[in-house]
Amino acid sequence: MTDPLILYTNPMSRGRIARWMLEEVGAAYHTEVVAFGSPMKSPQYLAINPMGKVPAIRHGETVVTECAAICAYLADAFPEAGLAPPLAERGAYYRWLFFAAGPLEAAITDRDLGMEPNIAQQGRVGYGSIESVLETLEVAVSAHEFIAGPHFSAADVYLGSHIGWGLQFGSLESCPAFADYWARVSEREAYRRASSLDAQAARQNASPL
Amino acid sequence: MTDPLILYTNPMSRGRIARWMLEEVGAAYHTEVVAFGSPMKSPQYLAINPMGKVPAIRHGETVVTECAAICAYLADAFPEAGLAPPLAERGAYYRWLFFAAGPLEAAITDRDLGMEPNIAQQGRVGYGSIESVLETLEVAVSAHEFIAGPHFSAADVYLGSHIGWGLQFGSLESCPAFADYWARVSEREAYRRASSLDAQAARQNASPL
Repeated sequence: MTDPLILYTNPMSRGRIARWMLEEVGAAYHTEVVAFGSPMKSPQYLAINPMGKVPAIRHGETVVTECAAICAYLADAFPEAGLAPPLAERGAYYRWLFFAAGPLEAAITDRDLGMEPNIAQQGRVGYGSIESVLETLEVAVSAHEFIAGPHFSAADVYLGSHIGWGLQFGSLESCPAFADYWARVSEREAYRRASSLDAQAARQNASPL
Repeated sequence: MTDPLILYTNPMSRGRIARWMLEEVGAAYHTEVVAFGSPMKSPQYLAINPMGKVPAIRHGETVVTECAAICAYLADAFPEAGLAPPLAERGAYYRWLFFAAGPLEAAITDRDLGMEPNIAQQGRVGYGSIESVLETLEVAVSAHEFIAGPHFSAADVYLGSHIGWGLQFGSLESCPAFADYWARVSEREAYRRASSLDAQAARQNASPL
């Protein structure tokens, strides 16, 4: 008997990352689309995620929020999918998961909002400068076939999504290293299935009542 | 035969989090103090962390950067310390590790720099508003004795450090929930040992040559 697994998401959000990860692990799950605005700030949904954001998952009694946490949790909860390295070999795996969730996300968001730290402020900002973040990332994605080594992992679902969207929406400068990495990562069957399901959900969501 | 374990740190940095975690796992390690400025941007150190930041650890051939990743890695690499939940029960553990590394860190940094997103920008910022981050955190630290449940874990080392420093330096508003959580977390022997070692390193570092 397996615990029920529910994805709270919106197809126009980072919930796509969680969907991709769910398709990778291959467990059955139920999707609850949460609309932006008042539904996402309703008491019912705030009881799931008090931040009023998607995605979130519920797996039995366990609620997980934060995209990267959802990826890491699912990889461990469904070990047969082979999406996390053995416990003793998780250095690169955690390094790049947290790099994407912390410095990369913050640097891209700040630049997008025109809030880039000046030289004097860079010492107080965890990521320093966006240039150092992107240079570091460019080397990292080129070092191995996947970000944590020779095997695809949950860290590729999460980091890959950042890079894929960055290239698609122009928030990340294109370069051969990013484009090649994204090409390797996005050829997963699970990515295609997830994209198709989210495209379908977006059409249903956008249709007039 | 165990792999050598090296901590690259500066006592006046978040390297204190990594030191605390190392003291928790109880493995022997060697400390390399890296001075701010040119030593931290030297080719030798950039070969360890191309971001030119501390902390970093090297464990045999594995290099780990990003404080939260160092905590998660060490918990898994030294399972006998009991600082990570079993694989199937890591929902809260990852949720709050990534919450601290992402939304909490970004919201506090942005406010510190006077770069708070306005209402229109909040939808584009992962953390939304600092108010929602702090309200969420206040409930989370009060729900159980420790952040991932009844047992102390690596997530408490990382999140606890953020809260402890926030209270000490005034970047976080004091409230009973934060103060009580920090009191529970900071009574660890390993925290006291790490603080003492960093205080000693800071004195040595500050002494005239």
